[in-house]
Amino acid sequence: MGLYQMWPRLRLPGLQACGLRTVHEAAVPTPAPWLAERLGLFEELWAAQVKRLASMAQKERRTIKISLPGGQKVDAVAWNTTPYQLAQQISSTLANTAVAAQVNGEPYDMDRPLETDSNVRFLTFDSPEGKAVFWHSSAHVLGAAAEQLLGAVLCQGPSTECGFYHDFFLGKERTVQGSELPLLERICQELAAATQPFRRLEASQDQLRQLFKDNPFKLRLIEEKVTGPTTTVYGCGMLVDLCQGPHLRHTGQIGGLKLLANSSSLWRSSGVPETLQRVSGISFPTAEGLRAWEKWREEAELRDHRRIGKEQELFFFHELSPGSCFFLPRGTRVYNALMAFIRAEYARRGFSEVKTPTLFSTKLWEQSGHWEHYREDIFALQRQGSDRPASSLSDHSTSHQAHSTLALKPMNCPAHCLMFAHRPRSWRELPLRLADFGALHRAEASGSLGGLTRLRRFQQDDAHIFCAPDQLEAEIRDCLDFLHSVYAVLGFSFLALSTRPSGFLGESCLWDQAEQVLHQALEESGEPWDLRPGDGAFYGPKIDVHLRDALGRPHQCGTIQLDFQLPLRFGLQYRGQAGALERPVLIHRAVLGSVERMLAVLAESCGGKWPLWLSPFQVVVIPVGPEQEGYAREVQRSLQAAGLVGDLDADSGLTLSRRVRRSQLAHYNFQFVVGQKEQSERTVNIRTRENHRLGEHSLTEAVGRLLELQNTRVPNAEEVF
Amino acid sequence: MGLYQMWPRLRLPGLQACGLRTVHEAAVPTPAPWLAERLGLFEELWAAQVKRLASMAQKERRTIKISLPGGQKVDAVAWNTTPYQLAQQISSTLANTAVAAQVNGEPYDMDRPLETDSNVRFLTFDSPEGKAVFWHSSAHVLGAAAEQLLGAVLCQGPSTECGFYHDFFLGKERTVQGSELPLLERICQELAAATQPFRRLEASQDQLRQLFKDNPFKLRLIEEKVTGPTTTVYGCGMLVDLCQGPHLRHTGQIGGLKLLANSSSLWRSSGVPETLQRVSGISFPTAEGLRAWEKWREEAELRDHRRIGKEQELFFFHELSPGSCFFLPRGTRVYNALMAFIRAEYARRGFSEVKTPTLFSTKLWEQSGHWEHYREDIFALQRQGSDRPASSLSDHSTSHQAHSTLALKPMNCPAHCLMFAHRPRSWRELPLRLADFGALHRAEASGSLGGLTRLRRFQQDDAHIFCAPDQLEAEIRDCLDFLHSVYAVLGFSFLALSTRPSGFLGESCLWDQAEQVLHQALEESGEPWDLRPGDGAFYGPKIDVHLRDALGRPHQCGTIQLDFQLPLRFGLQYRGQAGALERPVLIHRAVLGSVERMLAVLAESCGGKWPLWLSPFQVVVIPVGPEQEGYAREVQRSLQAAGLVGDLDADSGLTLSRRVRRSQLAHYNFQFVVGQKEQSERTVNIRTRENHRLGEHSLTEAVGRLLELQNTRVPNAEEVF
Repeated sequence: MGLYQMWPRLRLPGLQACGLRTVHEAAVPTPAPWLAERLGLFEELWAAQVKRLASMAQKERRTIKISLPGGQKVDAVAWNTTPYQLAQQISSTLANTAVAAQVNGEPYDMDRPLETDSNVRFLTFDSPEGKAVFWHSSAHVLGAAAEQLLGAVLCQGPSTECGFYHDFFLGKERTVQGSELPLLERICQELAAATQPFRRLEASQDQLRQLFKDNPFKLRLIEEKVTGPTTTVYGCGMLVDLCQGPHLRHTGQIGGLKLLANSSSLWRSSGVPETLQRVSGISFPTAEGLRAWEKWREEAELRDHRRIGKEQELFFFHELSPGSCFFLPRGTRVYNALMAFIRAEYARRGFSEVKTPTLFSTKLWEQSGHWEHYREDIFALQRQGSDRPASSLSDHSTSHQAHSTLALKPMNCPAHCLMFAHRPRSWRELPLRLADFGALHRAEASGSLGGLTRLRRFQQDDAHIFCAPDQLEAEIRDCLDFLHSVYAVLGFSFLALSTRPSGFLGESCLWDQAEQVLHQALEESGEPWDLRPGDGAFYGPKIDVHLRDALGRPHQCGTIQLDFQLPLRFGLQYRGQAGALERPVLIHRAVLGSVERMLAVLAESCGGKWPLWLSPFQVVVIPVGPEQEGYAREVQRSLQAAGLVGDLDADSGLTLSRRVRRSQLAHYNFQFVVGQKEQSERTVNIRTRENHRLGEHSLTEAVGRLLELQNTRVPNAEEVF
Repeated sequence: MGLYQMWPRLRLPGLQACGLRTVHEAAVPTPAPWLAERLGLFEELWAAQVKRLASMAQKERRTIKISLPGGQKVDAVAWNTTPYQLAQQISSTLANTAVAAQVNGEPYDMDRPLETDSNVRFLTFDSPEGKAVFWHSSAHVLGAAAEQLLGAVLCQGPSTECGFYHDFFLGKERTVQGSELPLLERICQELAAATQPFRRLEASQDQLRQLFKDNPFKLRLIEEKVTGPTTTVYGCGMLVDLCQGPHLRHTGQIGGLKLLANSSSLWRSSGVPETLQRVSGISFPTAEGLRAWEKWREEAELRDHRRIGKEQELFFFHELSPGSCFFLPRGTRVYNALMAFIRAEYARRGFSEVKTPTLFSTKLWEQSGHWEHYREDIFALQRQGSDRPASSLSDHSTSHQAHSTLALKPMNCPAHCLMFAHRPRSWRELPLRLADFGALHRAEASGSLGGLTRLRRFQQDDAHIFCAPDQLEAEIRDCLDFLHSVYAVLGFSFLALSTRPSGFLGESCLWDQAEQVLHQALEESGEPWDLRPGDGAFYGPKIDVHLRDALGRPHQCGTIQLDFQLPLRFGLQYRGQAGALERPVLIHRAVLGSVERMLAVLAESCGGKWPLWLSPFQVVVIPVGPEQEGYAREVQRSLQAAGLVGDLDADSGLTLSRRVRRSQLAHYNFQFVVGQKEQSERTVNIRTRENHRLGEHSLTEAVGRLLELQNTRVPNAEEVF
């Protein structure tokens, strides 16, 4: 068919243009026979479908009523008129910029004929739904390029919050190299420029299996996900992919495309995990759109916590412990300041800190239900002796320790349930609020790791409240108050209430009541919040705090979750006031959420200019000349003994003003300059990082004032000193 | 032979006496044929040896010179005179109480004929060496009983610091039950009462293998440990055991014997690990000795930290996380107070706290050398996907993540070496003092676990100092000063200097210098200390702090260790002042050591009466009547807001004096009694746990004073309030 012959024409000019022809020609295998075979079959089925639709449209030339945006009503022809044609009736700009339609609320390709009376809306790139269609279509282009250039076996190519990626399999040893991205990107761009149409085909299950007989991933997806008699397949260029749609009309709508990163990821459909290659990218309707985004990104990257973490020596990562962070002294200082903040609130709010183990028998996770739902994310230990040769002393391997495997805890709640249950409890002890900073481990795929926002090891300011049902309302109110007072200090927050998902566990009336409690508490709080119907956990509804990092990626931080399931699973009970045994309600609750992630979000929101109480750069002491170095050291020791960060810049090779400037660029909140006068009067001359001169203060007074500002956690210590 | 027939006579009366005859007769298998066979062979060899010795003594009737304790010189006959005969010449009491002799410094059975001119000393139960012989002999008795009653395959039965144990194998599923100990103990006592002699036999390697052909553990020991042409075997009753000796003359010297505990342990000779049964006990020359010990132990158990931990609700253990402790709110409070103490010192002393991961690739432990020496104690993770069926998508299992295994860190030093090495270092940064409270995991055998003193998970106040060689002396001095100032607050300490062991790594001259530095620093410190030659680590000499718990068991707590090896293994270097790259010296240093273990030792040393700064029972507020309950709650909140522990005893069912007494028995440092007068004047009426009445104080003043006493960590806040 024509398309197959078209491909070489598409590809080669691009290769010549980027000067890689020889390399590329040598590297690219001739297209695999199965590609041609699949495309041939697709074309056959497509031709049949075109015929079938035409005959349907002819058989019954029916007029249907269309309602357009703005209230306009028009007539159209069933099985013939397309949303694209309707958009053209409104304006050719709309027709050319719309990425898809919504027909009676259902997503629709612009070129897909309408079937019945319809309410038609148009999606453009400006809306989140439009971006999703645009980026998902771009993922097809990337998939086609990977199939051609790398011989990739495609798995899936979704849109994300800010772009798209495609996961594919390259065989045992082959990985994508960063150096291959420019060529892959160039091929994507060529394919986009070639204005390949997206063609939607309804295929039967047998046809699907035939089309994807060479792709074991798609076969598994078909087996697991496809339930109806037919499903949709899209063709675009040489690519044929299993896909719900909708897509752009053609690849020519992609005016700018950039590949951003390569990593590995894990294929986690049921059955066997497999290491895949992931390439991610972003695209825009115009080249200018892409350029503007690149500029924004450049600025945002300056605030990226990974960059700040490196520049300020807060933390680093090492290949010998992938996904776990090494916090350097300055990062640990920020970390500990956050924990101390929460600990101080715990003392005021009746929370009791506890410490629980890291390793638990997998039996615990079976009891809690995490093993069933979450097993792949749990790091399990080798059974004792499992990697050693079989015993000659006893021919069975069931020694004591081998009966159960130990695993690293991914969350604290089951340990706290054991703590609640370790002796009989009375109503007098409720509410019991157990807080735990224990380290949690989750086996995140290496491809999903990113700085501090997604780690394999992290700590939460986690707490679990065990309370009587009639204490629930007050506890939720107190939890919200806790959130508010902490986020007031941190300086941002966004709350959302997530209600019962489909497949929720427990009784509806309990859910009704619980959702109402959360709803009312949010209303009473007077803060703005969002409803996310169906977004709750299967075990109970929740209130979440959502924040965005410098790159606009959203992160869930604090949370308040009701849990009706764990108290049942652990058989938790207490002796009620009337003497009978009763079941407590459980609230999972975190304010910062992952301390690591919060540290990242804070680093980005302050752009490395830490407020005094969190700052690893509180004060630098600068002696005017070498004669004052002794006194400067004394000042430094006074700061350090008070638990403040006091660094020294005694580099006599630089002028005073250069040293002051240098420390301001390093974001030291305060500079204590000490000259002869200050030394003799035991004072310090204070400047701020914004170069405000606060004048001479006695050393004792200055240290005391800093401590006060630190302990009250003011956001602007430099202004209110 | 006679002994074999003797056995049933021994055993049955005992069984009748303890009323267990029927049960026992049903349960005990008829003695295994191999027991009789082994004993038969032993008797044959023994008869031959008796003959051989007699003929040697006859052939050459040689007089030898003996020097006795007190300087007495006597003549004796070679191959004939025994230490027992010599002891009788001194006194029959000595002859009957001596447990073994030392002949020319070599341990000797009392009945073993002397061979040459000898300097003879006698060991009694009063000396540590005598206790070791006595308890080791008792372990033989226990082994004999286990062999007979349980059909045990014996492994080893050493003496310990306070008693003895025997490890044996019972087959796949069988474990020793606590309920079996009384019967086992009774059999031991009967065997002791039967005055069975210990008979020392020299056997060739072939004979050894023949004697122990049915015991794979002994065969492995013979293979690994026996190097000379002959070695010793001891017979006692029906028991024949591979053993160096010496032993008691006969079991009748054991006047009192008690079995204390049963647990599992791990057979860890090279080859395959195997779960063994361990029974431990203690014994004394007289029944009175045993009774006195039982009385002492009863008192000591009142101070046992496990008992205090349970009574005060400090912590608990759970079978789902063996060897890891759950710290309840009160225990966490003590724990955090200890950490805060050390953190405050860190600020004063220029230590920087860091946080490092828990999981590392085993490559790290290979690099550090821990994998080679320590592998069995390291918990390793399952390789990703190792417990899943082989992939159908790719027929090899070498995915990215499978290339190396992750393991839980057993110590922090290698992580700190990575931190030192993660970027180039300059002499200006030295000394770099990195402190880390990270959780450590070690795969201790379940039999060795005991409360908080030996755990599988623990945290240390660990730090590593990287310094230039010429900074070493000053750093060691500062470390000792750190130890002194902390142990002055904790109230006890005992220092020991351990020098190079045989097989030390590195150059002698380096060791000379390092040992001298430590020696001199200890001398200068003016505190008493002990020299332990040869007790250092292979990588460097060390100073340790040794403490004992309530049961007299010694524990190593703080430590200062020099390490010449890790900087080499990690290729650590820094740019020296002259511009050349130089190698730093590494000091491992902990003050508390394991925080858990220190908490245990402190609990025992204060018997649960915690000093204010560590106390989880600082203040209880007691309203005189129900009318003052509101004010009492206000007082409680003031205490809690200040970070103090304030509990409330408003139980109106009890009189005031009963409530005061109750809180004193619970060891609350202070009682704040509030009546009508106190309420109207906003004061509190203060008593101490020793029932001293400190009178009325304003609430604000009282809280402030408590904070002051807490922050200065005085040991006797109740006296100096």
